[in-house]
Amino acid sequence: LLLFKESEYQERLSRTKARMEEAGIEVLFSCHPANMNYLTGYDGWSFYVHQGVLVALDYDEPIWIGRGMDANAAKVTTYLSEDNIRAYADDYVHSPVGKHPIDYVADVIKEKGWEDKSIGLEMDQFYFTHRTYLVLEKHLPNATFKDANHLVAMVRQIKSKQEIEYMKRAGKIAEKVMQVGVDSVEVGERECDVAADIYHAQISGTKEYGGDYPAIVPLMPAGDGIDAPHLTWTERKYEENEPVILELSGCYNRYHAPMARTVYLGEPPERMIEISKAVIEGLNKTLDYIEPGITCEAVEEKWRDTLSESELVDASRLGYTFGLNYPPDWGEQTASMRPGDKTLLKPNMTFHLIPIIWEDDCGFELSAAIRVTEDGCEKFYDFPEKLFAK
Amino acid sequence: LLLFKESEYQERLSRTKARMEEAGIEVLFSCHPANMNYLTGYDGWSFYVHQGVLVALDYDEPIWIGRGMDANAAKVTTYLSEDNIRAYADDYVHSPVGKHPIDYVADVIKEKGWEDKSIGLEMDQFYFTHRTYLVLEKHLPNATFKDANHLVAMVRQIKSKQEIEYMKRAGKIAEKVMQVGVDSVEVGERECDVAADIYHAQISGTKEYGGDYPAIVPLMPAGDGIDAPHLTWTERKYEENEPVILELSGCYNRYHAPMARTVYLGEPPERMIEISKAVIEGLNKTLDYIEPGITCEAVEEKWRDTLSESELVDASRLGYTFGLNYPPDWGEQTASMRPGDKTLLKPNMTFHLIPIIWEDDCGFELSAAIRVTEDGCEKFYDFPEKLFAK
Repeated sequence: LLLFKESEYQERLSRTKARMEEAGIEVLFSCHPANMNYLTGYDGWSFYVHQGVLVALDYDEPIWIGRGMDANAAKVTTYLSEDNIRAYADDYVHSPVGKHPIDYVADVIKEKGWEDKSIGLEMDQFYFTHRTYLVLEKHLPNATFKDANHLVAMVRQIKSKQEIEYMKRAGKIAEKVMQVGVDSVEVGERECDVAADIYHAQISGTKEYGGDYPAIVPLMPAGDGIDAPHLTWTERKYEENEPVILELSGCYNRYHAPMARTVYLGEPPERMIEISKAVIEGLNKTLDYIEPGITCEAVEEKWRDTLSESELVDASRLGYTFGLNYPPDWGEQTASMRPGDKTLLKPNMTFHLIPIIWEDDCGFELSAAIRVTEDGCEKFYDFPEKLFAK
Repeated sequence: LLLFKESEYQERLSRTKARMEEAGIEVLFSCHPANMNYLTGYDGWSFYVHQGVLVALDYDEPIWIGRGMDANAAKVTTYLSEDNIRAYADDYVHSPVGKHPIDYVADVIKEKGWEDKSIGLEMDQFYFTHRTYLVLEKHLPNATFKDANHLVAMVRQIKSKQEIEYMKRAGKIAEKVMQVGVDSVEVGERECDVAADIYHAQISGTKEYGGDYPAIVPLMPAGDGIDAPHLTWTERKYEENEPVILELSGCYNRYHAPMARTVYLGEPPERMIEISKAVIEGLNKTLDYIEPGITCEAVEEKWRDTLSESELVDASRLGYTFGLNYPPDWGEQTASMRPGDKTLLKPNMTFHLIPIIWEDDCGFELSAAIRVTEDGCEKFYDFPEKLFAK
């Protein structure tokens, strides 16, 4: 069931180890599900219990550590030898007897003789709780802990050929998904029934490429909640003359291709048409501007400039890196297109550019998921860029 | 859009404050999305950025704190006055300029004069990172921090009449969902297409009750991964003579009703039929035994006793509390049916009992989601309890 060649995992590991050396980290404990997957292949909905992967400079393979019943999933989905799949017993889970899964992680660290090493931890990642830190600190008084919050995420930033291929497949799924969404939204339909059609398309995927669950549910603000981009659907029925935003992703082997479009149920107001034209033109001018070597903040500045011609203001970041991920986010957190972000664009970085323009009850959303190429950028999907009216 | 009467939120708040007083906590900062929802009504897919709710003994309403663009969702979904919806600017999000959303939380705490109080934190909840703790500690040197890991979850344990009603509706959805799952699994079908049908049923719900997204995706181990309960689907096609486990939930207004059943694609092996009979009989004997006043561990002991007649062994906990929740878990983490858990059952506690019996490539899974009643327990759904063969 390996989704990449073992050599690709080896290559990821050596790039991770190089960053560890630079940062003075001898052992890395990574709890982020995307990092666990990236380093070992591990895939399973087990991230509601404590788990993680250990990487040590002086040790060949990563060590997967998780709950007993999930070790079987690790055997099926990772390239690791059985010795490096380590499982804790079930009484460590939400334990009534005072055991903590991270006790077991500390045991493995001690067993390997790493208890006095410099240990990297993802200090600000969900899935790395404060308690996790306290338990490690208690058991490993001679270790030095360093923040490795984005260490693996930085390695993930530049995608391999195979990863780009998976993201293109996610893009094919996204095209189908958005078409279903646009077709399905109708006055009188319940929001949940439209969401159900969208989900069906996401998970079924195409005939060639079966879908995986996106890290974010379909976001489809409408009506009263139109200016609340992260509201989910309700039982309410769509009404005449309301705008509906669809922010949806295709997902393939945990790789994403997010897309946003706006539908108006009726004859759109003149101002909305104006805004839509300004956004589409501005976004495409910005995409034309993108090339390796410029900074993330320069891209956002270009966007703000083109937008200012229409006197529109976008208060949120323009875009962010994305790729392999698990709930609650398909973003990578490492680079954003906005003032102050001096990240240099490089080939095979991947960004979701999603302007959010909303003035009271009038606005427009349309996004593009792109990869930086050798001399520009290209979109992961081909889908009409317009305000859909029906 | 309030899903409960304001008086119910008030009542939850006063029970939360009572527990805070008992624990010597003057101010609570809760980041868990289910707790945020429980205390304020807040609902939105925004838990991929830092956010939370402050509750103080000397302050009437909770204070919602989140990202600017999500304040609109807070206005739509909570009962809070606008003063108590506080939003940080977008440059706090994955900030390139060194800002952290929790800086803003500390600012609000100081503004309210709570900087030298005893502050309760959910130390081992995902969504409460180690960095969150460090930032609070830095800004609030005169505060005392106490662990409030399960404080709100303990309040959530006993459901109100309206909550039970929502869970019953989730149960109605679960009946439909499992029927779709059992009907859809076929030799030659891709796993992802079956998952898509299941998702459609989950999200569409019934004609009366529109579906919400369950906190866990459809779990459907089969084939090589049959002993890995948290594997998700692939593009693979189902083959003859394989068992398929379906663990699926209905969800209504974020309240769940999880259900597991087993399907065999062909003529099931004799041993599997034996196991299925033992599990169904044992589970129902265990349910008959449940009543208020007995402990969680006594329920598990009863289960183990009935099972031992068939010489079967269940290595994992029998069940756990569940209800309102968000990804990655529909469980509440507060009580489990297993040795050492002395939680006393009370009316309107709700449990998912899910025995997992698997011997090499042969086994059976079937679960029940129940509420404890005044004198026993009742299931949230009515669905055939058998090994499905097709």
